[in-house]
Amino acid sequence: MIKTSYNQLAGQNLERISAISDGIFAVAMTLLVLDLHAPAVSLVHSEGQLQQQLLMVAPRLLPYLMSFLTLGIFWNGQQVQLHHFEASDRHLTWIHFGFLLFVSLMPFSTQLLAQFICFRTALLIYWFNILMLGVWLLFSWKYATKAKLLHKSADAEVSKAVLNRIYVAQLLYAASATLCVVSTYLSIGLIVLIQLDYVFAPRFRSRTKPTK
Amino acid sequence: MIKTSYNQLAGQNLERISAISDGIFAVAMTLLVLDLHAPAVSLVHSEGQLQQQLLMVAPRLLPYLMSFLTLGIFWNGQQVQLHHFEASDRHLTWIHFGFLLFVSLMPFSTQLLAQFICFRTALLIYWFNILMLGVWLLFSWKYATKAKLLHKSADAEVSKAVLNRIYVAQLLYAASATLCVVSTYLSIGLIVLIQLDYVFAPRFRSRTKPTK
Amino acid sequence: MIKTSYNQLAGQNLERISAISDGIFAVAMTLLVLDLHAPAVSLVHSEGQLQQQLLMVAPRLLPYLMSFLTLGIFWNGQQVQLHHFEASDRHLTWIHFGFLLFVSLMPFSTQLLAQFICFRTALLIYWFNILMLGVWLLFSWKYATKAKLLHKSADAEVSKAVLNRIYVAQLLYAASATLCVVSTYLSIGLIVLIQLDYVFAPRFRSRTKPTK
Amino acid sequence: MIKTSYNQLAGQNLERISAISDGIFAVAMTLLVLDLHAPAVSLVHSEGQLQQQLLMVAPRLLPYLMSFLTLGIFWNGQQVQLHHFEASDRHLTWIHFGFLLFVSLMPFSTQLLAQFICFRTALLIYWFNILMLGVWLLFSWKYATKAKLLHKSADAEVSKAVLNRIYVAQLLYAASATLCVVSTYLSIGLIVLIQLDYVFAPRFRSRTKPTK
Repeated sequence: MIKTSYNQLAGQNLERISAISDGIFAVAMTLLVLDLHAPAVSLVHSEGQLQQQLLMVAPRLLPYLMSFLTLGIFWNGQQVQLHHFEASDRHLTWIHFGFLLFVSLMPFSTQLLAQFICFRTALLIYWFNILMLGVWLLFSWKYATKAKLLHKSADAEVSKAVLNRIYVAQLLYAASATLCVVSTYLSIGLIVLIQLDYVFAPRFRSRTKPTK
Repeated sequence: MIKTSYNQLAGQNLERISAISDGIFAVAMTLLVLDLHAPAVSLVHSEGQLQQQLLMVAPRLLPYLMSFLTLGIFWNGQQVQLHHFEASDRHLTWIHFGFLLFVSLMPFSTQLLAQFICFRTALLIYWFNILMLGVWLLFSWKYATKAKLLHKSADAEVSKAVLNRIYVAQLLYAASATLCVVSTYLSIGLIVLIQLDYVFAPRFRSRTKPTK
Repeated sequence: MIKTSYNQLAGQNLERISAISDGIFAVAMTLLVLDLHAPAVSLVHSEGQLQQQLLMVAPRLLPYLMSFLTLGIFWNGQQVQLHHFEASDRHLTWIHFGFLLFVSLMPFSTQLLAQFICFRTALLIYWFNILMLGVWLLFSWKYATKAKLLHKSADAEVSKAVLNRIYVAQLLYAASATLCVVSTYLSIGLIVLIQLDYVFAPRFRSRTKPTK
Repeated sequence: MIKTSYNQLAGQNLERISAISDGIFAVAMTLLVLDLHAPAVSLVHSEGQLQQQLLMVAPRLLPYLMSFLTLGIFWNGQQVQLHHFEASDRHLTWIHFGFLLFVSLMPFSTQLLAQFICFRTALLIYWFNILMLGVWLLFSWKYATKAKLLHKSADAEVSKAVLNRIYVAQLLYAASATLCVVSTYLSIGLIVLIQLDYVFAPRFRSRTKPTK
C-alpha cells in the first residue's frame, strides 16, 4: 500500500529528468578530455620536441572525438524522446537512469579504447557501451508507448521514425564492430563514418525544411 | 533585525535548489566512474592479458553500480519532496545542503568500499553515508511539514507514504549493514537487493497505474 | 557603434546566469571531496589499521566541510541577489563571472589549507578567497542599484539587509583571520563558528516566520 | 524517408541546448583550476618556503585566468545568439556541439600553455582553440540566418553587431598570436588586453544604458 502510493509520486517530473541528464552528459563530455595530458616537461626541450610529443598524443584524440560525437548523438536521441513524452512515471525515470549509467561509463570505455586501440577486447567493450545506450533508449520508447506516457504529437509516424532510427543505427554499429576481426581501425573508421553521416545527413538537407 | 530580514529573503527559490541538486548529483554520479581506470599499458601484451586485467577490475564495478543506484534512489526521494513543497525558506535550503554534502561524499565512500571491500570499517562508513542521506531527507520532510511549506497536494496519505518509505528503507539498510559481522559481501548483496526491489518494485507494477 | 549595440545585447538573461552559477557551484562543491582519497591498500592489513589510517585522514575533512559551508553560504548570498534583480546587463554578468572565478578557485584554496593547516600563509590565502567572494557580491549589489537593475521588491530595507550582511560577515571573517597570529586552528574554529551561526541563526528562529 | 522525419524531430529544443551548454561551460571553467596543485608537503618546512613555492606556482595562474576570461567571453557570445534564436533544428544543434567540443578542449589547451608558456607551438594551439570557438559561433549565426531560425528581434543591425564582433575579435586574436614570433609572453599579454577590453568596454560605459 505504502509503496504503491509512493511509487505514484516518484519521478513524474520530466523537467528534472532533463536537468539531471544534461548534467551527466555535460560532465561526461568534459571528462573525456581530462584524460588528454600535456606532455611531460622533462621530455621537451625545443619546439621540435614539443611538436613530436604532441603528434604522438594525436592518435589518442580520435577516440575522444568519436565519444564526443557518440554522446552528442545519444543526447539528441534522448532529447527527441523527452520532447514527445507527456509525463513520466517511476519506471520511465529508472529506465533513463539506466541510460545515464552508460553515459557515465563512456569516459571509461573511451580511455580503455584510447589506451588499447589495437585490441579487439577494448573495441568490443566500447561497442557494448554504444549498444547499451541504444537498448535503453529503445526500452524507454517502448515502455512510454505501452504506459501511455506519450504526448499526442508522437503519432504512429513519429514512433516508427524513432524506432527505425535506433534499429538501423545499432545494426550499422554492430556490423562495424564485427569487422574488428579484420582490424580495429576499420571498425573505428566505420563507426565514425556512421556518426558523421548521422550528424550531417547530407542527402536530406535539401529536402527537409527545419520545423520551427 | 538585519539578520531577520536577510533570513526571510534567503533560500526561497525551490527551482534553484533543484538546479544545484541536479548539478551535484550529476557530478557525483559521473565522478563515481572516474575511479575506474583502464589497465596499465605495460601489463598488457595480448588480448588474453587485457581480458585478464579487466576481469580483475570487474569486482570493483560492483560498488560503483551500487552507488549509482543509491544516488538514483535518493535523487528520486528528494525529487518527490521538492515536488510537494510550495516554497522554501532558509532552514529548508540548508537542510538540503546537508543532504547534498552526503551526496558529494558518496564518491569517497564508494572508493573506500571498492578498495577495502572485505573490511567492516569500510562497509559501515558506506552505510553511514546512506543513513545520513535518509536522515536529512526525513528532517527535510518533518521541517517542511512543521513550517507549513508543503503544497496542498501533500495530504496526510502522501506524508505517511514519504515517511514510511524512509523508515522502512533505512531499517532494511541498517539490518543489512549489521550482517557485516558475518560477511561484508552478504551486507553488500542485501543492500543491492533492497535497491533493486525499490527500482523495480515488481509486486506493484500490475496494480499501479502511472499518474500523469 | 558596433560594440555599443553588441553590449546592449549581451548578458541580459538572468536565468542563464543562474544556470551557469549553479553548474560552477555544483562542480566546485563536488570537487572539494575529490581530494579525499581512500588510504593506500598496501598500508592496510587489518580493521585496526584501516581505522587508524582513516583517523589520520579525519583532520583533512575539516577544511572540506568548512568550504562546503562557505560555498553554501555564498550560493545563498548570490541567490538572494539574483532573486531581486529585474534584469542583467553585460557589466553585471561580468561581475558575476568575477564572483564565479573565486568559487572555482575554492577547491584549490581548500586543498592548500588542508595540506598546510598550521601555516598562516595557507590560512590567509583561504581568507582572501572568502574576502573576494564577499567583495564581488558587494560590487554586484552596488552596481545593480546604480544601474537600476533591481526589482521593485528590493526596497531600501532589503538593500540595507543585503549590504549589512556582507559587511558584518566580512568583518568577522577578517577578525578571525587576524587571529592566525595566535594560531591557525583558532582562526579556522572561529570561521566555522561564524558559518554555523549563519546557517542555524538560532536566535531568530522563533521570531521569524518563513515567507512563502 | 525515415531519416527525414527523424531529423525534423531532433534538436528543436533551444532550452536544452542552453542547459547542456551551461553544464559544459561550468565543468570546463571549474576543471581549469583542477590543474593547480598545492605544493608538495615534503618541500615545505616553513612559512617562507610555502610562500616561495606558491610564488613559483603563480605564473601558472595566468593561463588559467586567461582561459576563464575566454570561456566567459564565449559563453556571452553564445548566450547572445541563443537569445535571438526562435527555434533550433538538428543542424544548428550540431553546430553548437561543434562549439562545445572546443569549449571542452579548453582545459587541455590551457594546461599545455601553462606547462610550455615559452613555446610557440603551445601558444598557437591555444590560439587555434580560440579561433575554432569563433568559427563555430560565426557558422551558427550564418546558418541560423539562412535557415530562418532567428527571432524577429534579430534585425539587420543586431546581425551586423554580432558578426562584426566575431570578425574584429578574431582579427585581434590572430594578430596577437602572430606576434609570438617575437615572444609568446607578448602574445599572451595582448590576448589578455583584448579580453579585458571586451570585459570592461570602458569607452562605451558612459554612452550605453543597459537595456532592461
